[in-house]
Amino acid sequence: MSDTRQQMKPFVEPESVAAIGVSRRTGPGAFNLLDNILSYGYEGRLYPVNPNATEILGVRTYPSVSSLPEVVDLALISLPRDIVAGVVKDCVANGIKAIVIITQGFADADDEEGNRLQRELLELVRGTGTCILGPNTFGTANAQLKFSSSYIHIPMDDNGVGTISQTGGTFLGLNDIRLVGKAIDVGDSCDIDIVDCLEYFEHDEATRVIALHVEGMPDAKRFLEVARRVALRKPVVALKTGRSGRSAQAVLSHTGALAGRDELWDVALREAGVVRVDDIEELADTLRAFLTLSAPSGNGIGVMTPTGGFGIIAADACGKFDMDLVEFTDSTMAGLRALSPEWLAVGNPVDYFPGVSIMGRPRDEMELAAMRLIMADERVNAAMGVIGAFSPELGDELALLAREMARDFPDKPLVYFLYGPHFTEVRKRLESTGTTLGFPSPERAVRALMHLKRRADYLARQHAR
Amino acid sequence: MSDTRQQMKPFVEPESVAAIGVSRRTGPGAFNLLDNILSYGYEGRLYPVNPNATEILGVRTYPSVSSLPEVVDLALISLPRDIVAGVVKDCVANGIKAIVIITQGFADADDEEGNRLQRELLELVRGTGTCILGPNTFGTANAQLKFSSSYIHIPMDDNGVGTISQTGGTFLGLNDIRLVGKAIDVGDSCDIDIVDCLEYFEHDEATRVIALHVEGMPDAKRFLEVARRVALRKPVVALKTGRSGRSAQAVLSHTGALAGRDELWDVALREAGVVRVDDIEELADTLRAFLTLSAPSGNGIGVMTPTGGFGIIAADACGKFDMDLVEFTDSTMAGLRALSPEWLAVGNPVDYFPGVSIMGRPRDEMELAAMRLIMADERVNAAMGVIGAFSPELGDELALLAREMARDFPDKPLVYFLYGPHFTEVRKRLESTGTTLGFPSPERAVRALMHLKRRADYLARQHAR
Repeated sequence: MSDTRQQMKPFVEPESVAAIGVSRRTGPGAFNLLDNILSYGYEGRLYPVNPNATEILGVRTYPSVSSLPEVVDLALISLPRDIVAGVVKDCVANGIKAIVIITQGFADADDEEGNRLQRELLELVRGTGTCILGPNTFGTANAQLKFSSSYIHIPMDDNGVGTISQTGGTFLGLNDIRLVGKAIDVGDSCDIDIVDCLEYFEHDEATRVIALHVEGMPDAKRFLEVARRVALRKPVVALKTGRSGRSAQAVLSHTGALAGRDELWDVALREAGVVRVDDIEELADTLRAFLTLSAPSGNGIGVMTPTGGFGIIAADACGKFDMDLVEFTDSTMAGLRALSPEWLAVGNPVDYFPGVSIMGRPRDEMELAAMRLIMADERVNAAMGVIGAFSPELGDELALLAREMARDFPDKPLVYFLYGPHFTEVRKRLESTGTTLGFPSPERAVRALMHLKRRADYLARQHAR
Repeated sequence: MSDTRQQMKPFVEPESVAAIGVSRRTGPGAFNLLDNILSYGYEGRLYPVNPNATEILGVRTYPSVSSLPEVVDLALISLPRDIVAGVVKDCVANGIKAIVIITQGFADADDEEGNRLQRELLELVRGTGTCILGPNTFGTANAQLKFSSSYIHIPMDDNGVGTISQTGGTFLGLNDIRLVGKAIDVGDSCDIDIVDCLEYFEHDEATRVIALHVEGMPDAKRFLEVARRVALRKPVVALKTGRSGRSAQAVLSHTGALAGRDELWDVALREAGVVRVDDIEELADTLRAFLTLSAPSGNGIGVMTPTGGFGIIAADACGKFDMDLVEFTDSTMAGLRALSPEWLAVGNPVDYFPGVSIMGRPRDEMELAAMRLIMADERVNAAMGVIGAFSPELGDELALLAREMARDFPDKPLVYFLYGPHFTEVRKRLESTGTTLGFPSPERAVRALMHLKRRADYLARQHAR
């Protein structure tokens, strides 16, 4: 095990945890760490520390770090900033190797005192083998272990996502995906930084894709070197914020970091093989794509649609995001013509609905026949279906089709653009297959394919060197 | 009433309808017009026409147009393309003024015959006072009347949206909004065109915002003249598709229209005061904004957030979409400082969470106090709240706050960026107020405000002339 991994393990995979500064106040609004940790069903050993209580929430409570019955893997500190240093000293003295400082008001504060206190913390651990995560952090979370050091309830999902973040907000997840798998909030990064976290996830088998929220950092060069290495092993998807002058200023007061010139980040991340995304919806879409879909082996796409109008909207999306609406082979065209009324202008996108409304074929059979022809075309590397989500049951029907396509064309990703009132339910049923994704616009569906393709191209170029 | 409105009224507000070509086959997969119309509870008079039946689905059926007991407002024709002309002739002979031709395979077809048949239809009605909508159309839909001529079930909502579309697909609506209010699918536009529809909605009192789906048209000049006039009266939001070379080609085979150079459309629409949107999500967001929010009187925005990290993401969004994160006045700053720990870097975005987690204020009270200070600032024209959607009940709490803000600051729009697992439910409860909107990203929230502001600026410039 690498040194970094050894160092990071107690933070993310602790078998025993001391929670220092646990209040006797519990329930909603109390933001009680212990309350929250218990709510997940964490099975490690848990020791609240509070000099004024012998038991909180039914858990035996200890008066001090030195009175704990074992050297815990991880200490969580949630105390007023002025008394944090004293407790850190106790932890070091007792051989604790990993400390999360949840408390705010250090480098993130508006005063010199905060910076001074942060420097002091670092002095306390220097050369001791003890590491600090934070301050100003939610700490870590781990779905496999049913553990989070956050004082807010975090929805988790053992989904293969490893998140490294400069804000605890991401622990709550996005609308379409949970970001904890495993997650680390680096906060003010006085000691443990993004690079350490990257090296932890690099070799973590449960983590299949890394989500990175970056505001800024002092040593971008080292970060980019490590990111380049990690990105060869698994996808790294980055949301780099603090883009405008005004928001870069806000970064400074959020975590004390430097945001840096945005254009430089663009180039540097691309060259390191990191997938940069522009907003949180693109972040969610891209993570979902890497978790679920295989990369298309080329830019060729085939589109199936029930209306010409949405076919054109889909074609616009392909033009915008580098996917090429192929001209089908003669044999595909012959197959499609056989399914369509004589007068229909057959082509890509495939308008399959006249085969239903005019030729009288059952809709599900027509969709399957048309999609099979598209997927079988040698020029097609990926396919998108456009579907009006007009009943929840449609999701089950689509799921059947998607399973069949995944079985017969495992190397060609299939995505759906779903529109209409039952979007959420249709998507849920469709995605239960684990082989395809539904998106609320063709742009988002095609953009996800584009990211898969670009990463595949990047890897191919690196391996050709 | 204008001539156009007179002409369009029977299409959108028919009191009596003949459905010609109604099959005796009913149920799912039959795409039976009559079945569908009955399902809405349409209260007008309905006459199926079929020479081989005296009754379909319990409705008395007539053998021919000439045997109908009255001159109906609207005739719907859904018959094979070769026999449509004969029925159109019957309709004209019987004095029917409005005909929807649902049948495909005219100018949208791949053969010369389709074009010939379409020219023939036009010849039949020329100078007769009868108008044709279509062919290749879903026709019209009207939530107030519980009527749609589509053979697919359309979810409707009497929400003030009037949609003009070149695809029936839009009738199914988008994920976040129903597009029928009232809607007209112009299809191949052999006779009734987008301009006629614009003139109908211009004076329709129930229609508060017009959604326009445009692929292309032969006479853009006349369209732009009318659009400019209509846009002075109510917002016109346009999704112009067929942007790339490849998709423009698809437009030709969809409805026989010419897509035109995309950059020219961009300029022309802007100059006509039409709000152009790039994709269907922006279409939905923008329509919702015009229906719900007042326009901000300036670009000044105040942002409230529970995490510094999402505050920066929100600041990036403001930079991207022309809203200016104001510097608060001294009195606002003093108020915010009184709510925050001493060390907190107070500013815009406002990080209100330390007031809760450190100062111990109840979260809802803190949110209300901070938002009230932001809204009361004279430099603030609009506000955005960032909220982690971590329980459905949060939506009720937010709704209370939003109601209070709408009452006290009716001219300052308030939007929310909601993240986390309970997005849908929190948004639903929040939006039940009818005064605010929730968005799944700060970009989409701020972009909606930008469109409101730009339209207000456009109107101000026009009135200053």
